[in-house]
Amino acid sequence: MTPDLTIDDVREAARRVHPYVHRTPVLTCSALDRMCDKQLFFKCENFQKTGSFKIRGAINAVLALTDKAAHRGVVTHSSGNFAAALALAAGLRGIQAHVVMPSDVPQIKKTAVACYGAAITYCEPVLAARETGVAAVIERTGAAFIHPSNQREIIAGQGTAALELISAVPDLDGIVAPVGGGGLLGGIALAAQGAAPAIPVYGAEPEAADDAYRSVRAGYIIPSNDPDTIADGLLTSLGDVTFPIIQAYVRDIILTSEAEIVRSMRLVWERMKIIIEPSAAVSLAAVMALPRSFEGKRIGIVFSGGNADLNALPWQNPES
Amino acid sequence: MTPDLTIDDVREAARRVHPYVHRTPVLTCSALDRMCDKQLFFKCENFQKTGSFKIRGAINAVLALTDKAAHRGVVTHSSGNFAAALALAAGLRGIQAHVVMPSDVPQIKKTAVACYGAAITYCEPVLAARETGVAAVIERTGAAFIHPSNQREIIAGQGTAALELISAVPDLDGIVAPVGGGGLLGGIALAAQGAAPAIPVYGAEPEAADDAYRSVRAGYIIPSNDPDTIADGLLTSLGDVTFPIIQAYVRDIILTSEAEIVRSMRLVWERMKIIIEPSAAVSLAAVMALPRSFEGKRIGIVFSGGNADLNALPWQNPES
Repeated sequence: MTPDLTIDDVREAARRVHPYVHRTPVLTCSALDRMCDKQLFFKCENFQKTGSFKIRGAINAVLALTDKAAHRGVVTHSSGNFAAALALAAGLRGIQAHVVMPSDVPQIKKTAVACYGAAITYCEPVLAARETGVAAVIERTGAAFIHPSNQREIIAGQGTAALELISAVPDLDGIVAPVGGGGLLGGIALAAQGAAPAIPVYGAEPEAADDAYRSVRAGYIIPSNDPDTIADGLLTSLGDVTFPIIQAYVRDIILTSEAEIVRSMRLVWERMKIIIEPSAAVSLAAVMALPRSFEGKRIGIVFSGGNADLNALPWQNPES
Repeated sequence: MTPDLTIDDVREAARRVHPYVHRTPVLTCSALDRMCDKQLFFKCENFQKTGSFKIRGAINAVLALTDKAAHRGVVTHSSGNFAAALALAAGLRGIQAHVVMPSDVPQIKKTAVACYGAAITYCEPVLAARETGVAAVIERTGAAFIHPSNQREIIAGQGTAALELISAVPDLDGIVAPVGGGGLLGGIALAAQGAAPAIPVYGAEPEAADDAYRSVRAGYIIPSNDPDTIADGLLTSLGDVTFPIIQAYVRDIILTSEAEIVRSMRLVWERMKIIIEPSAAVSLAAVMALPRSFEGKRIGIVFSGGNADLNALPWQNPES
């Protein structure tokens, strides 16, 4: 089945979000190039507004609403980057964002989302409670539900990062992006398929949350079973909108160990002097694990976000 | 007394080092601008080769040597950024760098300097031992001594960062740079004095290592007495070459507390998603402490380096 979303949706999203998002830089690092025998081009969404790519999809989804739908606000469930992104996007349109998040989320994350102006509803930290919480907000307010990943406007919005990357570096031999719910990877695959079909797109996924890897091989969605990875932006499983796009347009999913993720994150901090979060490091970890046939190739890597917890760094060994 | 170094020395240094150093970006951050009611322009020497501005002066000094002097190598005393910079600079000219460093330096710093190809001589962690160590290396090898800050070619080389900043943002209302030994601040003041004399230059110094502040007020050099600050790149005192330049061309020295340094460093990591070391954060801390008359002004800030110790971050309070 060919997905009915196309690059035209991504291009429409690009026109819509363009005034509101940063055209983030594409950085290079000769030290990392030497370490992995490739030429790497890092699309730095860690420098994006709210600290991650999520703002692209959030703004596209909020601006795509009719006035009638929009005026009752928007609601989502998220404890992380999408909550902040939707709050900022709603603020830009002058409407209220509601966020349902588990009560056990660290205070620092609650404060960040509240600072962006969202109304927070807390729920028990289980999937069912989250859905009940969202339903209650919708019943009370009539807010429009925006899914963090499994929604057409979100996927198209995230794909705008790839349009920028391909425009900045047209002759790539591959693009690698992390996969959690699949909004980013799906959008990037859509954009590359339409704008530069010769560039294969790869997903990077933690072994400890390998639902995309298994789903693509099985041919149907296999949700993650209690995933536990330091890449806490990648805990979500693929959905019925993201899965067919990834099935159709993503060349492969590359798995990475927790140790490789931490090592890659630290390498970027040390060598590039920029802050990426663990979920972003998964892309570099995957590239490090690519087979020999990729030596010397030009690889685009999407650094998805920079909202690392500065109070709890994942490396412990003092002299490692 | 007017210093005999001029902007011509800085311009000559710029021609010399240009092929070998990065023209580092000048970044902005709207969140930090709002927090301090100014327009800030960050000259990001944390992205410079070897992770700090020190490579500018080191290359200038090494390339300024005659062939006869150079072939016996160079020697310095440093436990930090200048050691790595001189090692790389020497390597570019194909000569040996010797570094005298205290034996109690952390292994991670020893390894970094060794990786750049320097021959390391360890000494007792006291000033006298350092000087004896350097003298012994010179006697054995005939190496040319390069001081980390108090030397004409070093000062001129560090000033090239200001030429780039002023060229990128010509209409600044001020430039703030950290001061330790005064090589960077002196070079920047020289460059600004010559290229844009209307732009005042300020030094930023930790209260806990306030020799420049006291020396400028006294009119003679008052060395630091056992300074103890998290900004470990600023422990050195002014010297007889740097002091007259700073006396002549620096508008004022602004003192910052340890808490303000840590807070500024963390703000940059959180908001800008870039890694700066404590000594670089002193500049932003000083700008935060500027009087009301600076509101709305356009201030250039030199982020001097990014070699922070990722194993020992200076913030402890988990929810601060």
